[in-house]
Amino acid sequence: MSKLKNVSCLFLQVVLLFNLSCSKTASLEGEVIVFDLKIAEDATPALVARILQHTDKPISEIKFEKGTYHFYPDKGFEKFCYISNHGDLMVNTPFPIIDIQNVTIDGQGSTFIFHGVMIPFLINGSSNINVKNVSIDWAQTFHSEGLIVANDETNNTFDMQISDEYPYEIRNDELWFVKEYYQHTIGQSILYDPERKAITFQTEDYTGITTKSKTSIKRNLDKIDYKYEYDRRDVGNKNIGVENRVTVKELKPGLLRVFGHKKKMPPVGNILSMKGEQGLNRVAPAFSVTHTKGFNALNITVHHAGGMGIIAENSEDLILDNFNITPSQGRMVSTTADATHFVGCRGKVVLKNCTFENQLDDASNIHGTYQKIVDVLDEYSIGVRMGHHQQKAFVIGQPNDNLGFVRLSNSFFPYEKSTIKNIQYINNRYQIITLNEKLPNDVKAGDLVENLDGYPDLLVQNCIIRNNRARGLLISNPVNTVIENNFFSTEMEALLIPVESGHWYESGNATNVLIKGNTFQDCQHSGFNRGVIRFDTDDDNQNIAFKNIKIENNTFNQFDNLILQVTNADGLLFEGNTITNSGTFQQLYPENPALRIKASKNIEFKNNTYTGKASKIMESDQALSKLTFQ
Amino acid sequence: MSKLKNVSCLFLQVVLLFNLSCSKTASLEGEVIVFDLKIAEDATPALVARILQHTDKPISEIKFEKGTYHFYPDKGFEKFCYISNHGDLMVNTPFPIIDIQNVTIDGQGSTFIFHGVMIPFLINGSSNINVKNVSIDWAQTFHSEGLIVANDETNNTFDMQISDEYPYEIRNDELWFVKEYYQHTIGQSILYDPERKAITFQTEDYTGITTKSKTSIKRNLDKIDYKYEYDRRDVGNKNIGVENRVTVKELKPGLLRVFGHKKKMPPVGNILSMKGEQGLNRVAPAFSVTHTKGFNALNITVHHAGGMGIIAENSEDLILDNFNITPSQGRMVSTTADATHFVGCRGKVVLKNCTFENQLDDASNIHGTYQKIVDVLDEYSIGVRMGHHQQKAFVIGQPNDNLGFVRLSNSFFPYEKSTIKNIQYINNRYQIITLNEKLPNDVKAGDLVENLDGYPDLLVQNCIIRNNRARGLLISNPVNTVIENNFFSTEMEALLIPVESGHWYESGNATNVLIKGNTFQDCQHSGFNRGVIRFDTDDDNQNIAFKNIKIENNTFNQFDNLILQVTNADGLLFEGNTITNSGTFQQLYPENPALRIKASKNIEFKNNTYTGKASKIMESDQALSKLTFQ
Repeated sequence: MSKLKNVSCLFLQVVLLFNLSCSKTASLEGEVIVFDLKIAEDATPALVARILQHTDKPISEIKFEKGTYHFYPDKGFEKFCYISNHGDLMVNTPFPIIDIQNVTIDGQGSTFIFHGVMIPFLINGSSNINVKNVSIDWAQTFHSEGLIVANDETNNTFDMQISDEYPYEIRNDELWFVKEYYQHTIGQSILYDPERKAITFQTEDYTGITTKSKTSIKRNLDKIDYKYEYDRRDVGNKNIGVENRVTVKELKPGLLRVFGHKKKMPPVGNILSMKGEQGLNRVAPAFSVTHTKGFNALNITVHHAGGMGIIAENSEDLILDNFNITPSQGRMVSTTADATHFVGCRGKVVLKNCTFENQLDDASNIHGTYQKIVDVLDEYSIGVRMGHHQQKAFVIGQPNDNLGFVRLSNSFFPYEKSTIKNIQYINNRYQIITLNEKLPNDVKAGDLVENLDGYPDLLVQNCIIRNNRARGLLISNPVNTVIENNFFSTEMEALLIPVESGHWYESGNATNVLIKGNTFQDCQHSGFNRGVIRFDTDDDNQNIAFKNIKIENNTFNQFDNLILQVTNADGLLFEGNTITNSGTFQQLYPENPALRIKASKNIEFKNNTYTGKASKIMESDQALSKLTFQ
Repeated sequence: MSKLKNVSCLFLQVVLLFNLSCSKTASLEGEVIVFDLKIAEDATPALVARILQHTDKPISEIKFEKGTYHFYPDKGFEKFCYISNHGDLMVNTPFPIIDIQNVTIDGQGSTFIFHGVMIPFLINGSSNINVKNVSIDWAQTFHSEGLIVANDETNNTFDMQISDEYPYEIRNDELWFVKEYYQHTIGQSILYDPERKAITFQTEDYTGITTKSKTSIKRNLDKIDYKYEYDRRDVGNKNIGVENRVTVKELKPGLLRVFGHKKKMPPVGNILSMKGEQGLNRVAPAFSVTHTKGFNALNITVHHAGGMGIIAENSEDLILDNFNITPSQGRMVSTTADATHFVGCRGKVVLKNCTFENQLDDASNIHGTYQKIVDVLDEYSIGVRMGHHQQKAFVIGQPNDNLGFVRLSNSFFPYEKSTIKNIQYINNRYQIITLNEKLPNDVKAGDLVENLDGYPDLLVQNCIIRNNRARGLLISNPVNTVIENNFFSTEMEALLIPVESGHWYESGNATNVLIKGNTFQDCQHSGFNRGVIRFDTDDDNQNIAFKNIKIENNTFNQFDNLILQVTNADGLLFEGNTITNSGTFQQLYPENPALRIKASKNIEFKNNTYTGKASKIMESDQALSKLTFQ
């Protein structure tokens, strides 16, 4: 009871102070609200209370006296969120920016510290929303870091030192990290080199830690018969047939020995980043922006998030300027997933003057979705299935959007177009799309649809992308893409431009791509045998997927040979680029050429400079046998 | 692809047949829709399609040609459901009866077979909804049954034979049962005696299987500091500090040896019912009725559900007539939770001519909720916290409902009343209640509120309640309760009438209770030392909780002594009852009296007949020293 009394008194105090401390200025459009540090202990209830009054008492600006504010989920506004490429969950936010227009949130240099599973900024169905001058961090992280202090290749063990900031327990020999309102296992993991504060060279030899194996005892599971397509990778199903392989013993407090890992033992001195099971470990992106027109983020620093820095879906005109992802407090890791990610966004998408570093996935990923036709219901209507569990509930478009019908085995471009009349949401895997025009004559179950209007004019300019897991930019965009004056140092591709269908259902080929004036420094250093810039298709055929690509005046200062890997392109100009060898690491694939081109046409190389180590600069298939590097 | 084609063709066929097979009759109020067996393979999409058109094309009745219909979740209508005393989940239904008036659903004797996690009937915000003449079952159950074929008290093992209808696998020595769209561990378990098809005598000596123990290795978990009250029992938190104790090895296909159980080994020939972890194992009640006025269920049989037969919340005038819960297909278990359960319901609640047997929890549970005041926000507003995780998101009342302020340490009755102006839903644990009148002067955090209008006139008549786990009726109802002409044979109390606050936050004392003409046969046979009828309070004091109780003309044919256990009552008449000893089982507590009364007044015994075995019929405290059995 005494604890409760304290809570109540504190809250009364907060509410009274809020009334005292929150000054208001009326304007034509709405009030300017200024919060001061009296709400800093838990700023959530005061914000929720005021924002929920927005309809009756419009707000034009919310300002914060400069300082550090804490945010707890306990009194946050709740919403069930299906979030692309994240978990889907009932979650709380202090900023329910839902169906709101023309609001600016200005931290004035403040730091916002979040506690547990929350979405700091939940922006949905809104327009002209501006957030600026704020840093975002979490009190406890959604990942954990362990210092490798010993290893034993003979017995296949390694030892990790876990600092006090990462509480843990061992349940049936399995390691669990326990946080404020959250917990995770080793799960997905990767090594960091603390000297470089970057992903460890050749980490693929050591990680991910092989935590899972197949169960040996199963009875009658094969007799379970699913009437419809069943996604074995979905969160509720993926543990079937799987058990833990890796066991952990505590040698002394904070010192853990890991048994059963099947790759090479991680080197001493490295830091193992662990973020828990795939499918469960993306629950708290810093910004979720959906169905919103006009979002500007200026002078933002996201030190951490349990998911992406920003995930934007079905939105239009999004500008991130000096929007930075960077770790704090000596951590190796910033956000536990992509820095930024855009699904089905249109209008302008701009990333400029940003630093995206040390996040555990791509700096940006821009694409649409393919949805699979499972029912042809009548001449105008189809039932579609969401292919990937992280696209659950994604609504592919709005009335009158152009819908393309795609059969990837025949072409990477739509075989016919139509326009959307309406979409009836049935459940997160199934929707009914009705068209304004009759369906194509030969439409059939298994064909895909994509929204041809759901791609942006993309500009990535003056950004620094480094020290993160995975790619720099992963782009499937048939509209326009400009990537200019950026710096890349990534453990996988700096630029991956795919047509992807079978696994992620992330739609989009690529047309009109300009890659200009960028510096690529020692990318692909984790051990994959792939190019620094790679155009790739899932489907192994000769069809054209990529058109009008220009790669100009870039600098490639790489430790290894393979620079450019292209397939299925028509029209690619590689001009004025400088390729050198950095000598930073030993070469992993010295037999590789610098350029590998196949199933393509109208490829041209002009005025490039090569001082790398490849004995053969160009490798191409027979159709391109006349192609030369210049 | 070929699989997809088939799906599409089938669906086209179904849709075409639906158009052919669904006849319609217009009426003043709406159409009468008749579905025939052509939709039987998966009736879900046709039903969802038609019910979602209800606003434009009202329905008065939905009839089914008599037969067996299957329902799959894949194309079911989705809704996030917070369901009292169940899990909270995004779930699918073929019957989205949401904001609909005056509809009858008539199965005409059909059987509906459900597949996976679905809510057969999801009835929300509706009025005058009638469901009749249908049986509900599941293709695969949410629990599993194993026959005990051997045990070894020396080595603490027992062996179970698992039939092919319960697919399983063993992950890291832990047993998992895998179903269509579902899976569970041993979790909560109890023994059935297959000869009696009832809970095993003295099962408490053997079950639940002790599947969990505390983890031994924990570091710094005690340093995690929660600003607000933190519910360690909530689903996301309850596995912290806990690991599996019991391990399972397969001796040969279908034959499992269980190690590590700490109670007595289950006897050979018994059947162990296993339903998985508490908090995860109630996901698919047969009927969920919320905020609905007028619900009638007539001639319904629920053979199974992954949760309750019916859970009704915040609803009014609910009549279940010949609504039966009974297992099918040779199973020991029917529903995996209560047969029926009513939270915050008002008007009439009637259960008549029902059989509730073999379910894994009470036949009925009727109560309100206590919500805890955590913030006194101003003179009119309080912030309240939902105390139990299975009451998340429960909204306690409607505008102008009478709200009682309760401090249980002082009284089981409210110390003051007020009326609700409105309730602002913030999140599933926190709401802000604003009152029409000023708050009580001395209101403080820690006080509870209950809705004094959220209790019913309850009638339970001509029902058979037997062979289930837990109680017969669990009633906290200060309005009127009549329990008459029923048969009870339950493993715990036949009637438990509590004031409960500390664990479940299920509100309500009891006033005006008539218990008349019932037969109680060998209740409390699982091993607890408790009365067949028990009035009980959590708080150990002399305050009155129960008033105006009449127990008349009942027959108690019990194997053991303790019949009536009463505390904190004012006004109890026990008249014309016949108490005999059945001799069915050996006595477990031969030293017990037949009647145990304490902290009570105005207790009267008249014209009863006792031929039981108790050496002392009455046990009472000093204040009641003059009380005699007559």
